[in-house]
Amino acid sequence: MFDTVLRTLRSPQNVGMIVRSHAAFGGRRVVMVGYEQPWRFGPGTQAFSRRLESTCEFVNLADDDAFFRWCAAEAVAPVAIEVASPPILLNEFRFPQSVALVVGSEGAGLPAEFLARCAGVVTVPQYGLVGSLNVAVACSLAMYEVCRGRPVQPIMGNKYAGERTQAEPGTAPNPTT
Amino acid sequence: MFDTVLRTLRSPQNVGMIVRSHAAFGGRRVVMVGYEQPWRFGPGTQAFSRRLESTCEFVNLADDDAFFRWCAAEAVAPVAIEVASPPILLNEFRFPQSVALVVGSEGAGLPAEFLARCAGVVTVPQYGLVGSLNVAVACSLAMYEVCRGRPVQPIMGNKYAGERTQAEPGTAPNPTT
Repeated sequence: MFDTVLRTLRSPQNVGMIVRSHAAFGGRRVVMVGYEQPWRFGPGTQAFSRRLESTCEFVNLADDDAFFRWCAAEAVAPVAIEVASPPILLNEFRFPQSVALVVGSEGAGLPAEFLARCAGVVTVPQYGLVGSLNVAVACSLAMYEVCRGRPVQPIMGNKYAGERTQAEPGTAPNPTT
Repeated sequence: MFDTVLRTLRSPQNVGMIVRSHAAFGGRRVVMVGYEQPWRFGPGTQAFSRRLESTCEFVNLADDDAFFRWCAAEAVAPVAIEVASPPILLNEFRFPQSVALVVGSEGAGLPAEFLARCAGVVTVPQYGLVGSLNVAVACSLAMYEVCRGRPVQPIMGNKYAGERTQAEPGTAPNPTT
């Protein structure tokens, strides 16, 4: 059982993609810490254009203190997905039964004082010469790992159901031009 | 050891994100089947704006026949990432030593006649009521799983190094500008 926590992400594409993964992996709540509702991001936001937001419960919390109080009240363990050194690798971490997976902003990640208040800090193993994982990808990997081995739902005939590129609202290949 | 194979993807954002993950997970070659070079997609493409493409070797192949001949010649096993029913789940699949991970287009996925020629078809387990994984996320999950347990590189101090939202080209160092 997991909640997904977004702390000051800035790209609506990333938020949208995380909500899609959250829905696919059967997450409980999407918690936004310290900023506006995602559905204000507008039509460019992948998940929201597909109305996935209606399948999710959203929780909005004003700041870090409110978030950690919420974790205590809801009995969920906050676990940050962040590059740490030395790392505790995602595939070696034993997730608590009820966990809130937290990602931070695309540029700065999560600050040290936030990480210090988490129950764990988990790093996606990387093998290349540059650290280059997208934050939505990192978050999705954590969801996948939390769910690992659980029985799946019978939705599998769906072929990435409704998957659609941002680049083609009609057929035109590139709406930005 | 894996190669990443993109067959007729349409969104430059998705292609860019897949190349980023490919670089992060230490993939060998990025193989494009049946369409133009990704760097023609333009500045909206995440990975390419960050010049990650210079760290990857690209292979362009005209069509499916050329691709399967390439697999045979290179002794890599083509494994499709696709929703199948009944599914062989990603976390239960034993990947061959040398594997080409193939994803198809955002809308239609990979056609049945393509899947029939692959060494395996692997499905990301999903738990929600709607199948909603982004194709770049699905592909990244497969890379993660292929690499699972391998010793990591010492790049971990990087904090999603250079991660940048598409939504804000202005604020900080941007190699394309």
